[in-house]
Amino acid sequence: MTDTDFEQQCINTVRALSIDAVQRANSGHPGAPLGAAAMAHVLWTRFLRHNPANPGWSNRDRFVLSAGHASALLYALLYLTGYDLSLEELKGFRQWGSRAAGHPEYGLTPGVETTTGPLGQGFANGVGMAIAERWLASRYNRPGHTVVDHYVYAIVSDGDLQEGLSSEAASLAGQLGLGRLIYLYDDNSISIEGPTQLSFTEDVGARFRSYGWQVVGPIDGMNPQEVEVAVREAREDINHPSLVICRTIIGYGSPHKAGTARAHGEPLGEEETALTKINLGWKAEEPFHVPPDVLSYFREALSRGQKQTENWDSAMKSYSSAYPEEARQLEAQLRGELADGWDEGLAALFLSAEKPMATRVASGAVLNRLAPRIRSLLGGSADLAPSTKTLLDGEGDFGPADYSGRNLHFGIREHAMGAIANGMAVHGGVIPYTATFLVFYDYMRPAVRLAALMGIRVVFIFTHDSIGVGEDGPTHQPIEQVMGLRSVPNLTTIRPADATETAMAWVAAIENVHGPTALVLTRQSLPVLDRGVYASAEGVLRGGYSLWQTSDSPDLLMIATGSEIHLALEAARILADRGINLRVASMPSWELFEAQPQDYRESVLPSAVRARISVEAGITLGWERYAGLDGKAIGIDRFGASAPGPELYRRLGLTPDRIVQEALQVLKGGGY
Amino acid sequence: MTDTDFEQQCINTVRALSIDAVQRANSGHPGAPLGAAAMAHVLWTRFLRHNPANPGWSNRDRFVLSAGHASALLYALLYLTGYDLSLEELKGFRQWGSRAAGHPEYGLTPGVETTTGPLGQGFANGVGMAIAERWLASRYNRPGHTVVDHYVYAIVSDGDLQEGLSSEAASLAGQLGLGRLIYLYDDNSISIEGPTQLSFTEDVGARFRSYGWQVVGPIDGMNPQEVEVAVREAREDINHPSLVICRTIIGYGSPHKAGTARAHGEPLGEEETALTKINLGWKAEEPFHVPPDVLSYFREALSRGQKQTENWDSAMKSYSSAYPEEARQLEAQLRGELADGWDEGLAALFLSAEKPMATRVASGAVLNRLAPRIRSLLGGSADLAPSTKTLLDGEGDFGPADYSGRNLHFGIREHAMGAIANGMAVHGGVIPYTATFLVFYDYMRPAVRLAALMGIRVVFIFTHDSIGVGEDGPTHQPIEQVMGLRSVPNLTTIRPADATETAMAWVAAIENVHGPTALVLTRQSLPVLDRGVYASAEGVLRGGYSLWQTSDSPDLLMIATGSEIHLALEAARILADRGINLRVASMPSWELFEAQPQDYRESVLPSAVRARISVEAGITLGWERYAGLDGKAIGIDRFGASAPGPELYRRLGLTPDRIVQEALQVLKGGGY
Repeated sequence: MTDTDFEQQCINTVRALSIDAVQRANSGHPGAPLGAAAMAHVLWTRFLRHNPANPGWSNRDRFVLSAGHASALLYALLYLTGYDLSLEELKGFRQWGSRAAGHPEYGLTPGVETTTGPLGQGFANGVGMAIAERWLASRYNRPGHTVVDHYVYAIVSDGDLQEGLSSEAASLAGQLGLGRLIYLYDDNSISIEGPTQLSFTEDVGARFRSYGWQVVGPIDGMNPQEVEVAVREAREDINHPSLVICRTIIGYGSPHKAGTARAHGEPLGEEETALTKINLGWKAEEPFHVPPDVLSYFREALSRGQKQTENWDSAMKSYSSAYPEEARQLEAQLRGELADGWDEGLAALFLSAEKPMATRVASGAVLNRLAPRIRSLLGGSADLAPSTKTLLDGEGDFGPADYSGRNLHFGIREHAMGAIANGMAVHGGVIPYTATFLVFYDYMRPAVRLAALMGIRVVFIFTHDSIGVGEDGPTHQPIEQVMGLRSVPNLTTIRPADATETAMAWVAAIENVHGPTALVLTRQSLPVLDRGVYASAEGVLRGGYSLWQTSDSPDLLMIATGSEIHLALEAARILADRGINLRVASMPSWELFEAQPQDYRESVLPSAVRARISVEAGITLGWERYAGLDGKAIGIDRFGASAPGPELYRRLGLTPDRIVQEALQVLKGGGY
Repeated sequence: MTDTDFEQQCINTVRALSIDAVQRANSGHPGAPLGAAAMAHVLWTRFLRHNPANPGWSNRDRFVLSAGHASALLYALLYLTGYDLSLEELKGFRQWGSRAAGHPEYGLTPGVETTTGPLGQGFANGVGMAIAERWLASRYNRPGHTVVDHYVYAIVSDGDLQEGLSSEAASLAGQLGLGRLIYLYDDNSISIEGPTQLSFTEDVGARFRSYGWQVVGPIDGMNPQEVEVAVREAREDINHPSLVICRTIIGYGSPHKAGTARAHGEPLGEEETALTKINLGWKAEEPFHVPPDVLSYFREALSRGQKQTENWDSAMKSYSSAYPEEARQLEAQLRGELADGWDEGLAALFLSAEKPMATRVASGAVLNRLAPRIRSLLGGSADLAPSTKTLLDGEGDFGPADYSGRNLHFGIREHAMGAIANGMAVHGGVIPYTATFLVFYDYMRPAVRLAALMGIRVVFIFTHDSIGVGEDGPTHQPIEQVMGLRSVPNLTTIRPADATETAMAWVAAIENVHGPTALVLTRQSLPVLDRGVYASAEGVLRGGYSLWQTSDSPDLLMIATGSEIHLALEAARILADRGINLRVASMPSWELFEAQPQDYRESVLPSAVRARISVEAGITLGWERYAGLDGKAIGIDRFGASAPGPELYRRLGLTPDRIVQEALQVLKGGGY
């Protein structure tokens, strides 16, 4: 067998495993693995620097399958190269309990670098990884000591490139000159509705050149030699990200479905699978067959990887000798460790504040206090830093002129911002934060969802959190967004009521290593509560707490968050003056509260007390959880309007007087 | 005064009015109006075919201010050219009750074609308008009778072009060859964080050429002669959309803020406003000054517009004589009228269905039944038509080869799809629908929100609405999306339980002219309920109804939607067999239900009955509205998993047995 024949056999092994897995599952996407196997094979056997026995090695090259529906391809490679993913699991593709999940899932499957499937996400995640790489390299590499220098490879599809998300990320990657980013575009001219001609006729190469990318090809993406030459060319230009346009045939090998949309999203069928395998020189009747010499060849990744990590270990050793402090810091960052005392003084930071302060301003102060103590913290905003108060003072701008800058400028690209932050987080070594106005959370929902699904530490800062935005009007006033954040599983949302709660919210956010945290902050100034009068803001860490009360056995519960706490307190004092026995509970984070033991929750919101009022400047949907059928949720169940913020609060009925009236009604059993 | 001087005076009038309005409001964006006034002036006085006295004239050119933050500029033009917007309202810019709202709002202000502000939306809306124009032109124009042929102009900003949304829309516009689309790019090199160099260095012209656009310029966007020549050039190429790159200076005229980010988003200040006006040759002390000859000149738009509409009226008259039927149809479409009997037979369509049917399949059948009866109905999907069942049989594909096609191929561009549909709806003459998987609602949330805010008739179809998606796993399984739809004010969400309810859901969607409707449909087959046994599906039109019960005074209420109705019914029969007196309420649309009179709602969900169970394959957040503190909301408060759909239902506890157990617990007063 010639080298070329053997290589083809390796590629066909990947193809056959993929379509066998899809056929066994009777579900999945055979077309992309058949078309892209050669590209993947070349990347994985000739370029990818990785150690299947140590998938957490920090300086490995990252491989992103942005076309996540081609998951079977990735699982085949993971199995073949020796990751902890067995052939049995591949046989259980897409079944309950198998780590060969429907789409690649970060945290579930060793070797999967990020969760992909929703198109464009992997593309942007890779940009985040490349940012993290450059930033760590710039911070830690020293002359003669290069301890951070890896590539980020991806396979991206037509669908990835049609999504606006990838346009945003690509434009930014070009601007940033991320030369270690090399994306292979699986250009197969087919999408679900038919030929891409139906909706995608743009000149992709010219588009990427306009972003400042190096574009290689088009090449024959099914010819391994061409792919190898192209990737080498891509690697040579270290100042520009590269797109290698690989022409492929979707469903290659399938006699009746190759080159058509029918190869995309459903199994080929028993018969067609058999015919395809025969076409590829395979035996139809032996599913999951792997020729032993092919397996041995792929498994060389283990010894190669072992050597690569050993080399890196010794580089680190020498680095540690020369730069012990830097080495210690880098290692701590890579482990995600925080320095002792990182949160020192935060609880007291605003206790003696005398003037009202917007929680976005308080957040900015906390962030700048944290930045010197948490070296891994970096981030930025979608062109709103002066408003979101997220600039790190005295730190540079991240960019080709200075990759050590900690201030990222994402541009007006919220979706890419979120997905890039996710990529940074899964890369490791950094704690990313993002910022925009809360209403624009809608522009980045898919990325926030994926952060939650992946369970990664990203801090999403959202300011201008209500009709308090004022004159910009309903397009800029969040109404359903706070509840929208709460609706996402594994996302912790915190809407602090004042500066002191904001400081504690940051503590909770940094401590949350199992999922993202959304900080929801005001544009407008709020009183800083006197914690001599009100309960300590440490209650934020429990999500909700009794802030003020007339007695331990209240007849009325008032539950509020953020800026509306101050309205609730005003109303509460009026009611208290009328002799009503009540409690105001601050509930900045439902998720943290609901994670508390039942007795704590009962102590804050006694279930026997059914006269309940909730107050939040957003939709009431969801507040019935706490208000109940006998209580009253006060909120805003319409869009906002253009007017100064204080006037809007009055016009839309968010006033102490209204709260008092509703409370009296509820106490009467008013029939809500 | 020379013509040039007079023109400059006109432009400066627009500038001065804008900054006076911003200063009076002490809120707003002076920079863009100062920079873009010349561009806007040239468009409005030399090109825009419109009639300020008749803003609803169907064949007017559309003007979209995609950079909605420059709203003061638009209001100045509306006032000057004679729209029903007084100088007094301009003086009340951004205040409660003024139609000169913070950002332009469709439906609020005559002459505002679409609501803009969230960047990229106006850009994509314009593409939708141009699609509607071409489609109506292709359907109705006849040789010698051109009754539809207008342009769509827009002013777009750096921010618009950075958003991925505009990339999606631009790529599609290029593909579609929408030559009547002419966008002026206000290229001022400044965004909020500073020079656009910080995050936006791509070659915009090359990027748009790659999409198939004609690119004109860069020109000096503050020189009216250059703008005029460029727009003429743009208009000449009728086969490609045009981007005219206009270099401008943000805050032009402001001695201390011009060309800087400080001119963008806050008033110049009293003193700087005065200095700017002096710079422009204005008197500082006369706010809202309009030279009489300038006003007369702008007001010529009224007589010009009058003549244009008269010409069109006579063209329509002649068209009516030659093509009476077509004229009648076109006029009915433009008025949004439906033919009598459009919904005939829908209620009965599936009554004798014998096999289970996915609601997406039922929806496809209904859509194809409606299409011949509702000529204005057209739409498509984000490359998922075979799955969303949204292809119109026997209808062509909309594109340069056939602009009369009713099947749109949006490509994998959900966000643009939504915003384009919005543009089609505000254009008039068409009823657009879109389709994608429910989980990808997240990719298009901002567009759906704007449809709701604008109160326009768009049908958003979302299929694959739960973990019933199965093997594709958590990235593709909606969890929080159904409740997310319900969270948007003025959006009607309908999740039908079977084919018959689906038909009624379509009736409700088409009848809803004051806002968008989201149809939430299953991937998996569902039994078609025997309406001899169960209550009539006409109850869908009231949002919720008693579907099945053991008596009129139940002790237990079970409330469910969509596919979970069938689980609830199974559980209900088991409970009924045990002698429990209960009712199953189908609640496909909370919004329609909550719009019913109190006595109807009480008749379906008697408030005295507190033993309540809700069942839906999504988050429970929000269901407490109906379940109450003493009931139990059964749902899924985690992400899904990869496995076949039926297995996931079992694994995640959505089974009749579980429902029975929870119901028994609730009946006991189980302390939930």
